[in-house]
Amino acid sequence: MSDALVTDLYEVTMALTYRRLGMAGPATFSLFVRDLPPDRGFLVAAGLESALDFLTGLHVDDEDVADLADALKRSPADLEPLHGLRFTGDVWAVSEGRVVLPGEPLLEVTAPLPEAQLVETYVLNQVSHQTALASKAARSVIAAIGRPVVDFGLRRCQGVQAGMHAARAAAIVGFASTSNVAAALRYGLPATGTMAHSFVEVFPDEARAFRAFAAGGTDPVTLLVDTYDTGHGLEVAAEVLREVTDGRGRGIRLDSGDLAALATDARRTLDAAGLTSARVVVSGGLDEFAVADLVAAGAPVDVFAVGTRVATSADAPYLDAAYKLVEYDGRPVMKLSTGKVTAPGAKQVHRREGGGEDVLATRTEPVPPGYEALLQPVMRAGRRTNVAGTPASAVAEARERFARDLAVLPEDARRTRTPVAPRPRTSARLAELTTEVVRALRQPGPPADGSAPSS
Amino acid sequence: MSDALVTDLYEVTMALTYRRLGMAGPATFSLFVRDLPPDRGFLVAAGLESALDFLTGLHVDDEDVADLADALKRSPADLEPLHGLRFTGDVWAVSEGRVVLPGEPLLEVTAPLPEAQLVETYVLNQVSHQTALASKAARSVIAAIGRPVVDFGLRRCQGVQAGMHAARAAAIVGFASTSNVAAALRYGLPATGTMAHSFVEVFPDEARAFRAFAAGGTDPVTLLVDTYDTGHGLEVAAEVLREVTDGRGRGIRLDSGDLAALATDARRTLDAAGLTSARVVVSGGLDEFAVADLVAAGAPVDVFAVGTRVATSADAPYLDAAYKLVEYDGRPVMKLSTGKVTAPGAKQVHRREGGGEDVLATRTEPVPPGYEALLQPVMRAGRRTNVAGTPASAVAEARERFARDLAVLPEDARRTRTPVAPRPRTSARLAELTTEVVRALRQPGPPADGSAPSS
Repeated sequence: MSDALVTDLYEVTMALTYRRLGMAGPATFSLFVRDLPPDRGFLVAAGLESALDFLTGLHVDDEDVADLADALKRSPADLEPLHGLRFTGDVWAVSEGRVVLPGEPLLEVTAPLPEAQLVETYVLNQVSHQTALASKAARSVIAAIGRPVVDFGLRRCQGVQAGMHAARAAAIVGFASTSNVAAALRYGLPATGTMAHSFVEVFPDEARAFRAFAAGGTDPVTLLVDTYDTGHGLEVAAEVLREVTDGRGRGIRLDSGDLAALATDARRTLDAAGLTSARVVVSGGLDEFAVADLVAAGAPVDVFAVGTRVATSADAPYLDAAYKLVEYDGRPVMKLSTGKVTAPGAKQVHRREGGGEDVLATRTEPVPPGYEALLQPVMRAGRRTNVAGTPASAVAEARERFARDLAVLPEDARRTRTPVAPRPRTSARLAELTTEVVRALRQPGPPADGSAPSS
Repeated sequence: MSDALVTDLYEVTMALTYRRLGMAGPATFSLFVRDLPPDRGFLVAAGLESALDFLTGLHVDDEDVADLADALKRSPADLEPLHGLRFTGDVWAVSEGRVVLPGEPLLEVTAPLPEAQLVETYVLNQVSHQTALASKAARSVIAAIGRPVVDFGLRRCQGVQAGMHAARAAAIVGFASTSNVAAALRYGLPATGTMAHSFVEVFPDEARAFRAFAAGGTDPVTLLVDTYDTGHGLEVAAEVLREVTDGRGRGIRLDSGDLAALATDARRTLDAAGLTSARVVVSGGLDEFAVADLVAAGAPVDVFAVGTRVATSADAPYLDAAYKLVEYDGRPVMKLSTGKVTAPGAKQVHRREGGGEDVLATRTEPVPPGYEALLQPVMRAGRRTNVAGTPASAVAEARERFARDLAVLPEDARRTRTPVAPRPRTSARLAELTTEVVRALRQPGPPADGSAPSS
């Protein structure tokens, strides 16, 4: 099914009306997250590549017109104004992997009104869910204080695309590897995995299961020890791992029980067997809170395998992301609904180099010395202005950006529990513009006219 | 990218080992949800069609072998044992739309061990996330006590596939329509939508925006009244709706503020204008709890548009679903890890006709008179045994099944707050089998051998 149809019906209705009325003036929409979920101190931008792929490929063709007519229960002739629509606008965006604060635009679209409106649903879906997943995953990396974290989430993600994006988001924030084979191949990531309990169960005993696995040639050889009795499983695993003398990595995995205590037992058993370099991998319902607790308890864990809770961002599976009209045909606009005031006009974020301060500003005001502009032009007149690269290079570059931003992120924002997100300051010019527009909208007399004095 | 690659790496490693060792005996895996999330009193089976599509299409071809070798960092020759693998097994499953209780299998696969193992990740992903979404959505329908509920979730779902599945799951449990155009077309659902705040903002005033919208020909004409001042917006909307005299449906939408109070204002304003049949649509962060509160408050709401929180199953975005080996080569098996004991062997659920009792039983014991067998054969030797139908007919049939099951669901399970899930009883034969296998696994002496006396 064409991507043009992956949209809310009202986008189609509105775009159609605009096209019929010739309302094709440039509209700027700003995609941002107003407030962060409780246990988030920052966001990590992700999803831009998917959004740009969608915008580049968008084309309402004959078949789409027929399908849209069907969905709207109208004649194809009624839908003709949308025929041939492509995205011909400009996009400014924060690069994937950058840290973003509440209220800062992740992306801004400026395009003829029907196009800018029609792309809302898809772009919002991709940027907001991928940013949610990256922002969650980053917290496990921080909690693990340098020990490797790996992604085991695919099986319980909300669909296959979510599983691909969870692995990708995890890679951006520094995960060491993923169990997701398709994601590893597409994004150039190391693939990882051990064995399932079922593997142990189909052999007559653990020793035979472990030897069969070791003979399979995987590197590392990581044996799952908790299918029956974990203490016994550890002894058997140590015996089999000692037989692996061809230089492959060795380790055991714990997937249930008191992981801190069992990891200590495991380390002791492995060390006693002379397997001091064998790694202890833990999994089973882990998230950043569990990782932090294991680290705080001094558990001798070498690898944290996090799955479901992180890959679905279980405590906050969506972000309060909005795609708001901020300017139309040269007029800054805003709505005044209770609790949802949005500053008008195209924006920029000025970030102090080395961190410590973000300023939410209008797009056009100069970037002060010692600050960088967080939003960059990525599409002009419907064409990408940045180099698309490969899926793997996009992830690798985003990963470097996140590592740099993380290094200067305040401790308050990084905390696992009760983090506090820094808030961007508002520039004097943006504050002034907001006041002007609010005043114009609230002026007494005839119906509010939705416009500010044109600038 | 081939669906064969959408898997955890360990499935590949294990399947490869099994193929190399000639371990191709029939294995039965059972997919079930051990415990329900806190605010769930039942599950609604969904995702079977996707799982069967995957199983039908699975084929490890030349390119997959090369890709897998790449992911495993092995030579393609090492992967050769998986070359040509297709799914040749049997599947028993609960039909989509049926109510399912904790511990009851949603699906059981019996296939040569390598195949049954290799399909785990994809099947688990599809069945568990779609069941999670359907089970969440059902609660909004119950809370709305007969008033229409519509799906507005696409924009904040975890990806496009999640958005398609959220719309589909919502349709199965009785939603009236969806805003998702692609889902409406694919699944034969009514598409629905109103207008965005941005639509109001691009016109000089609300009256002009509303008139332009009404002239657009949509049916119904539903005007969004809360962009600036809701009371004023309502007055303007009533005026414009009175001008719509061509028989189209008419209504207003509220998306912010105190929805109960505003709905009352809206009803009063519309009635005063003689628009007694105009409908009040509410949206904005709704879920079953908010719907129940609006209903309890007597708010005159005609349509509940639920979005993000329902379409992401925000309070429980995943289910604790497992795909457990229960039998291999004629031997019932189970693992004994702390807190995760699973009854062995292929199963069946006997459901008393008319509801009131489920019995978790072995597959082979007779279904008592007055009971039905909940799991049905849907695939034999790799081919579907039920008629595939169209995507739309599958949804329509599932919708009927859910309506029938909902009608006999106990009040405790249906409650919005603090629901209690009924638990299936265990048949005498299954209890006996479990005891036998546990005894065999716990017998003193040499390492537990994972097998029960063969039956």
